[in-house]
Amino acid sequence: MRILMIGDIVGRPGRRAILNSLPDLRSELNIDFVIANGENAAAGHGITKEIAKQLFTAGVDVLTMGNHVWNKKEIIDYIDKEKRIIRPANYPPGTPGLGYNIFPAKDGVLIAVVNISGRVFMQELDCPFRVVDQVLAEIGDQTNIIIVDFHAEATSEKVAMGWYLDGRVTAICGTHTHVQTADERILPKGSAYITDVGMTGPRDSVIGVTVDSVIEKFITQMPRKFEVADTDYQLNAVVIGVNPQNGLAYEIERVFNLE
Amino acid sequence: MRILMIGDIVGRPGRRAILNSLPDLRSELNIDFVIANGENAAAGHGITKEIAKQLFTAGVDVLTMGNHVWNKKEIIDYIDKEKRIIRPANYPPGTPGLGYNIFPAKDGVLIAVVNISGRVFMQELDCPFRVVDQVLAEIGDQTNIIIVDFHAEATSEKVAMGWYLDGRVTAICGTHTHVQTADERILPKGSAYITDVGMTGPRDSVIGVTVDSVIEKFITQMPRKFEVADTDYQLNAVVIGVNPQNGLAYEIERVFNLE
Amino acid sequence: MRILMIGDIVGRPGRRAILNSLPDLRSELNIDFVIANGENAAAGHGITKEIAKQLFTAGVDVLTMGNHVWNKKEIIDYIDKEKRIIRPANYPPGTPGLGYNIFPAKDGVLIAVVNISGRVFMQELDCPFRVVDQVLAEIGDQTNIIIVDFHAEATSEKVAMGWYLDGRVTAICGTHTHVQTADERILPKGSAYITDVGMTGPRDSVIGVTVDSVIEKFITQMPRKFEVADTDYQLNAVVIGVNPQNGLAYEIERVFNLE
Amino acid sequence: MRILMIGDIVGRPGRRAILNSLPDLRSELNIDFVIANGENAAAGHGITKEIAKQLFTAGVDVLTMGNHVWNKKEIIDYIDKEKRIIRPANYPPGTPGLGYNIFPAKDGVLIAVVNISGRVFMQELDCPFRVVDQVLAEIGDQTNIIIVDFHAEATSEKVAMGWYLDGRVTAICGTHTHVQTADERILPKGSAYITDVGMTGPRDSVIGVTVDSVIEKFITQMPRKFEVADTDYQLNAVVIGVNPQNGLAYEIERVFNLE
Ligand SMILES: [Fe+2]
Ligand SMILES: [Fe+2]
Ligand SMILES: [Fe+2]
Ligand SMILES: [Fe+2]
Ligand SMILES: [Fe+2]
Ligand SMILES: [Fe+2]
Ligand SMILES: [Fe+2]
Ligand SMILES: [Fe+2]
Repeated sequence: MRILMIGDIVGRPGRRAILNSLPDLRSELNIDFVIANGENAAAGHGITKEIAKQLFTAGVDVLTMGNHVWNKKEIIDYIDKEKRIIRPANYPPGTPGLGYNIFPAKDGVLIAVVNISGRVFMQELDCPFRVVDQVLAEIGDQTNIIIVDFHAEATSEKVAMGWYLDGRVTAICGTHTHVQTADERILPKGSAYITDVGMTGPRDSVIGVTVDSVIEKFITQMPRKFEVADTDYQLNAVVIGVNPQNGLAYEIERVFNLE
Repeated sequence: MRILMIGDIVGRPGRRAILNSLPDLRSELNIDFVIANGENAAAGHGITKEIAKQLFTAGVDVLTMGNHVWNKKEIIDYIDKEKRIIRPANYPPGTPGLGYNIFPAKDGVLIAVVNISGRVFMQELDCPFRVVDQVLAEIGDQTNIIIVDFHAEATSEKVAMGWYLDGRVTAICGTHTHVQTADERILPKGSAYITDVGMTGPRDSVIGVTVDSVIEKFITQMPRKFEVADTDYQLNAVVIGVNPQNGLAYEIERVFNLE
Repeated sequence: MRILMIGDIVGRPGRRAILNSLPDLRSELNIDFVIANGENAAAGHGITKEIAKQLFTAGVDVLTMGNHVWNKKEIIDYIDKEKRIIRPANYPPGTPGLGYNIFPAKDGVLIAVVNISGRVFMQELDCPFRVVDQVLAEIGDQTNIIIVDFHAEATSEKVAMGWYLDGRVTAICGTHTHVQTADERILPKGSAYITDVGMTGPRDSVIGVTVDSVIEKFITQMPRKFEVADTDYQLNAVVIGVNPQNGLAYEIERVFNLE
Repeated sequence: MRILMIGDIVGRPGRRAILNSLPDLRSELNIDFVIANGENAAAGHGITKEIAKQLFTAGVDVLTMGNHVWNKKEIIDYIDKEKRIIRPANYPPGTPGLGYNIFPAKDGVLIAVVNISGRVFMQELDCPFRVVDQVLAEIGDQTNIIIVDFHAEATSEKVAMGWYLDGRVTAICGTHTHVQTADERILPKGSAYITDVGMTGPRDSVIGVTVDSVIEKFITQMPRKFEVADTDYQLNAVVIGVNPQNGLAYEIERVFNLE
């Protein structure tokens, strides 16, 4: 079984990448199941019902989110209806939506998708390590194929989570920095790991945003409206080869496609 | 001309990587000049005179630093004598040491090495963008081969610096996160860029530190002494192919060696 | 000579405090010159031309700002025309507006008003200590009455600035936390000091904002629109008694008025 | 019933303040019970068994802590034996020591003392609002006299906690900034509140530390050993007048004594 995990989809170029490239990728890479981080899909901030539907139609099976999950207000109602959108599990109890869910893939195989947020340099959420333990306990023996999207900033927190979950999940895929890392590997106990899957969005940009506006912001320290850059896209993802017997990964391979 | 830029050397495994692998790498990769980030060379924190000498002897031409530059106190005197150690240029005026320097490579070609620190999630230093402008003005036409080690945390700041310097320097190499990124490229105006060169240190670790201690720190939030992990090493670097005519890069290639 | 420094004016209740109370305060406290921090005057975020005029008409002589200075876009043009609005001096060179200015008070006495921002837990601006040195050098012997509004979060940075400027300025008045501190004093070399002047705005609020929305934000960690609370006002200020001979302070007294 | 809450005791001058002044204060202010924050009692960082005993002997009934709680390692064992030392309740489950405890005062009246840490600009602990709810549930009807030391940096978080607990506890006393605030009041539903009780330590210092070292640190951004300043002390505290019938406060008064 081969699972594709796609890095943060940013704005129109990111959606175009999915619409144009995903069908081919699915067949070329022989993909059975597609997860994509969608926290920046709507103009760089959050997601809407319409955009989510578009992405599902294009072949995404599950959308994970991150710190931008609530940017478009309609998600607050929508996320309770659309169980294929997963938000970080370490928001407080009572938060709309699900922090993980279990989905049927081909041949009735079940795949659990978990979304967790880091805390270093980020929001004040519940401890990601304790919450992921609780999520794994809840998943129990419903399935042994578990993909964790750990949406975090600091490499220390992400790498630590990789080791913490090694052998207990299928894959730990970092997201949020919008830059793909080159450290993909199978950890000693059999989990696939990458610090960051990267970004699916405009290539000639600063993590999705127009170059000039970000440079100007850094230099002037004055507020600046950030707009998604309108350039050719890059698609960043990883393919995870899964052994359905034990839920462990036999392979993780980076995808870095250009328009 | 081919320049090797080595990512943060961490502790004993990192030094072993240099001693064991650098001589072979120099010849295999046909390297003319070697820069290495040495901010974590001494037990993970800073550098000493003895360790610096060891690294120079092993074939490093220039050591750049970062936020850990002052961890070993002897550096404060030593850095004013050893002009091959470069600390972030955006420390305030009057700081010991140099923020950049110009070195002779083979055939009398001159190479400027610049070290700058980011500010996002880091220390309160001078604006890296304005300081790098000033450094480039000072370098002037002494040489057009300029390698910038941008030691920073946030991908936004690093990518922005890449675009800011594109066409004005030979290469912008990010350091500090200890995880190599997969976004190396030649930018449109000819500068080589990578968000992070990665770490040269213990592979089975959390960015250099023993796995258990970091996990325990994250979970308990209690202070924990961090020690460099004692495992096999990884060596992370990039090779930059330089056109000495215009000082631009024709190539940037990642190196990810395992012990 | 007696100078009134008023803490951050927040929204409608803050403006009402000025309109209702300032005329009486001026005469009761025998005030010669009024400075007020206006960074939150317009609905809690920034200031407009109209509101600035209203405050000047009500008896404010100079408005200082802070991290919210640019929230209302019209200020970017207006601040270059209205020299009685002072923004933090440690924004980069080229920033609109002035970081300090010198104003005539009664009997032709000149008063310099300086605005500086802290960096700890705040924006990445130029070093406040080096910038204030430069400002004092520029003021030179134009006047020895100098009031510094140090707009900062961390008590360490504010107290350090107090000691740094002791004997070199008339008063160092902290702003930004919206909570008045009880540590007002004349420092050993003659400068008046207070860590925070406090807030002039709605009393039953969380530093100006409606209580429920802030609590909900902390608990849910979801985005929440913050509105200025619509309650009775408090007016927070300090009176600084100045010896015009040497520009030092003989007195600093807190004002904490309720509607 | 009158309770004295003393702000962070810093180093030798802070301990001297307690030894010299507390006996007199107890009788002059007619105090029945004394709580003091002791997180900086040992040379500015943490507390030792010996120093804790000294403070208890001098008349402190309960010591609360904060982010510096673990600085001296011996506390880790000692805190499980000494139930009069309370550390922030929102450390993870399993942390040594107690986050609250209930103590007998005169006439058999019981007083609950709770310590909570903020999260804004601080450590990544559990949600202080949810944890305090849980602590209050556990205290239940054992006593209605409840003093909360909220050890936090941001005024927004502290003021919000005050409103959150108004009517449910006797007093919410902020600590950690080492600067006493002037906003003490009885909130509408009967709880006493102050944003920060202040510091009991060396007066001519930067929140306890020698002035020159802190200024030098801010200007040079180089590491600097911080030592507790050796100057006359200040003692910062609040007296809370409690109605034992309903556990609410009828009075809160600041204490700001100088050596
Ligand atoms: Fe993202
Ligand atoms: Fe994100
Ligand atoms: Fe490093
Ligand atoms: Fe670093
Ligand atoms: Fe303000
Ligand atoms: Fe502010
Ligand atoms: Fe403290
Ligand atoms: Fe503290």
